[in-house]
Amino acid sequence: MVKKLSAEFLGSLLLAASVVGSGIMVTILTQDIAIQLFVNTITTVFMLFIIITLFSPISGAHFNPLVTAAELFYKRISIKEAGFYVLAQVLGTASGAVLANLMFNKKAIEQSTYTRSGNYLFLAEVVATAGLLMIILLLQHQKRGSMAAVVVPAWIGAAYIFTSSTSFANPAITLARTLSESFSGISLKSVPLFILAQCIGAVLGVLIASLLTAQKKEEDVFA
Amino acid sequence: MVKKLSAEFLGSLLLAASVVGSGIMVTILTQDIAIQLFVNTITTVFMLFIIITLFSPISGAHFNPLVTAAELFYKRISIKEAGFYVLAQVLGTASGAVLANLMFNKKAIEQSTYTRSGNYLFLAEVVATAGLLMIILLLQHQKRGSMAAVVVPAWIGAAYIFTSSTSFANPAITLARTLSESFSGISLKSVPLFILAQCIGAVLGVLIASLLTAQKKEEDVFA
Amino acid sequence: MVKKLSAEFLGSLLLAASVVGSGIMVTILTQDIAIQLFVNTITTVFMLFIIITLFSPISGAHFNPLVTAAELFYKRISIKEAGFYVLAQVLGTASGAVLANLMFNKKAIEQSTYTRSGNYLFLAEVVATAGLLMIILLLQHQKRGSMAAVVVPAWIGAAYIFTSSTSFANPAITLARTLSESFSGISLKSVPLFILAQCIGAVLGVLIASLLTAQKKEEDVFA
Amino acid sequence: MVKKLSAEFLGSLLLAASVVGSGIMVTILTQDIAIQLFVNTITTVFMLFIIITLFSPISGAHFNPLVTAAELFYKRISIKEAGFYVLAQVLGTASGAVLANLMFNKKAIEQSTYTRSGNYLFLAEVVATAGLLMIILLLQHQKRGSMAAVVVPAWIGAAYIFTSSTSFANPAITLARTLSESFSGISLKSVPLFILAQCIGAVLGVLIASLLTAQKKEEDVFA
Repeated sequence: MVKKLSAEFLGSLLLAASVVGSGIMVTILTQDIAIQLFVNTITTVFMLFIIITLFSPISGAHFNPLVTAAELFYKRISIKEAGFYVLAQVLGTASGAVLANLMFNKKAIEQSTYTRSGNYLFLAEVVATAGLLMIILLLQHQKRGSMAAVVVPAWIGAAYIFTSSTSFANPAITLARTLSESFSGISLKSVPLFILAQCIGAVLGVLIASLLTAQKKEEDVFA
Repeated sequence: MVKKLSAEFLGSLLLAASVVGSGIMVTILTQDIAIQLFVNTITTVFMLFIIITLFSPISGAHFNPLVTAAELFYKRISIKEAGFYVLAQVLGTASGAVLANLMFNKKAIEQSTYTRSGNYLFLAEVVATAGLLMIILLLQHQKRGSMAAVVVPAWIGAAYIFTSSTSFANPAITLARTLSESFSGISLKSVPLFILAQCIGAVLGVLIASLLTAQKKEEDVFA
Repeated sequence: MVKKLSAEFLGSLLLAASVVGSGIMVTILTQDIAIQLFVNTITTVFMLFIIITLFSPISGAHFNPLVTAAELFYKRISIKEAGFYVLAQVLGTASGAVLANLMFNKKAIEQSTYTRSGNYLFLAEVVATAGLLMIILLLQHQKRGSMAAVVVPAWIGAAYIFTSSTSFANPAITLARTLSESFSGISLKSVPLFILAQCIGAVLGVLIASLLTAQKKEEDVFA
Repeated sequence: MVKKLSAEFLGSLLLAASVVGSGIMVTILTQDIAIQLFVNTITTVFMLFIIITLFSPISGAHFNPLVTAAELFYKRISIKEAGFYVLAQVLGTASGAVLANLMFNKKAIEQSTYTRSGNYLFLAEVVATAGLLMIILLLQHQKRGSMAAVVVPAWIGAAYIFTSSTSFANPAITLARTLSESFSGISLKSVPLFILAQCIGAVLGVLIASLLTAQKKEEDVFA
């Protein structure tokens, strides 16, 4: 259990540190916002690949309360363990944002003023989170969960760019992003609707994955 | 059958949403057209990898009427099923374009005014589609069809940039792109010649794949 | 033999078309030369991955007279077959350059005026070609030749950027690049020293690969 | 032993040549510092993948005195061999920097005047090196050391961007970078604190890897 929670904490910390840290870095280095977003994207893609690869054998590599909730729904994790997981994720991502701030010579805790609101951003978060959950669950049901280490980063990489919200898709990361005044931040008052959208998206993702794996097992062509 | 068509619909939707959505995103973020095209390209590469990986075990992951036509030619799909596949692809890509518009706070349906014409663009579409079909069929004939999940995205990624047409290579996507006024759009009146070029390219791709696999089986060095 | 030569011709054609075509595309789209080079690089990386993956089981995927020469040196190909391979490579890359010109509405054959000379460029071509041959031969000697499909593109991708010559590393491609007046061109009078440097590099690459595999077989940790 | 040291020397040379060479190249080609850093990053990612893949079966692919130190700590290398490894790494990276200078028509040895100092850079190097060592050791303890060929490049790729120091994470590379007056250089007087930070990071990385693998073996889901 200590190792599992350490892995969740450390993976969440690294994820938030890379999202926020690269967000600060690109703001310093260029004025071109497409380059900012793209470099931020690729950094996140690399980090997701790393932490899912490294920590899957230890904790299952959730790093996201909604993934833990889905595992709870499928009874693959106990409610007590799920609670600790979410705690580790929230503390981990917050620590990662603080670490990023310190690495860039900023105050440990800033408060983002970046307002993100609008129905279209809400829709984008629903799409981003639905896709994320669909991918994770579908791969598990297809008995190739280990491929999440490459498919999940690809999804987040695409969704950073093709959704208008740049795909937060994770309540813990959303909270952590309030702690940094940068390109990748979000103001605290924009958080509730983002998390609501993510919850709706997660339910939708579970439904789609169920629809696509119902009744008969698909063969795994990659095995 | 429901699962197959759902997979074709959903994959086509995600493909079009990422092509159109990232096209809108980059138009907002930068003036540099090379950056626009490159970010649009990488987003599409990620998404193709995702949908081919996820949906291959379910529907075969066509997402393209010309791929379905080639499967029909090789009698690996019935004519009735092929018809439903194409319908799912056309509805899916159109829905994806609408979703992208809505995620970026635009009207659900726009009409692209982006004229794309000229013999050289026609040639480019022939090349892009011939390569696509050659790759898919050659890998199948070499008994390593699952590698399409990485080789097809690489092809589209290259062809977005080295062909002057930016490689539509898919009649369903071509139609869906008429629904968005953006970097990745195409006006309705430019569509017929694009689709004609794609059909010619598909026939050429089938011929090349046949030439390269005729008579004796090649060994699979990757097995 | 027909299939082998077709594969060499087609792979060489696609390689040159992507190098030259993306070179023309980026020149049209942006003024930033780093972006031009980077997009040109990634396009080439994608294409090398594709053609090595697809055509390895058919022809061995040389696409480069110096690779064929090394195979001849190791007596893994007959001198007659080697001659035909080189012919297919030279015709293929030339055809690819012509195709790229036509796809971008240019004259079929242009004459590049891009002078590339200087001892430092000579050194760069030696390094780029030595690395390429070392990689191909070392992987073969380590009994994991199929990994060339990913390691070779990575090498060319790196060498495009860290060598001052942008890593031609291939006499057939060097000749084909004289046929296009663009970012990726080279004037005919700069060709002889480039090819000389590539030949020296190839010999050096063979020597290094021999040094690193002499006497006892290494185990393949990736098997 | 000759082959092992040749592999360490050659890999270190190629790594430094690509870091420094691409650093010079991007400084020539663009004014946008985010593009400079990103192109420098991807070049390094490609090269790390190449050298770890190629030389792992020969020398274990350290290319970094701190990796060798960790191997010594775990008694997987003798002290004498470790000494020669470090020598090969320092000579290799220095030669690589010289080669990069010569390829770009500069003096063989320059002296960087790029001062890099500050507590926040110190912290960044601790983080970058801790992550690197954690990854290498964790993968080894999980019996999938060969995955370092992709996970290590991803880590360095991310850490170039999300740490303020751009992740040197290697004392040999740090020394070599003093030999080039460019984007990727570092002044000699900034070196001691960088190396101190890297040593602290390495110890931290060893501790984290130990914590996460203590007591019971984890299963390898990727086997």
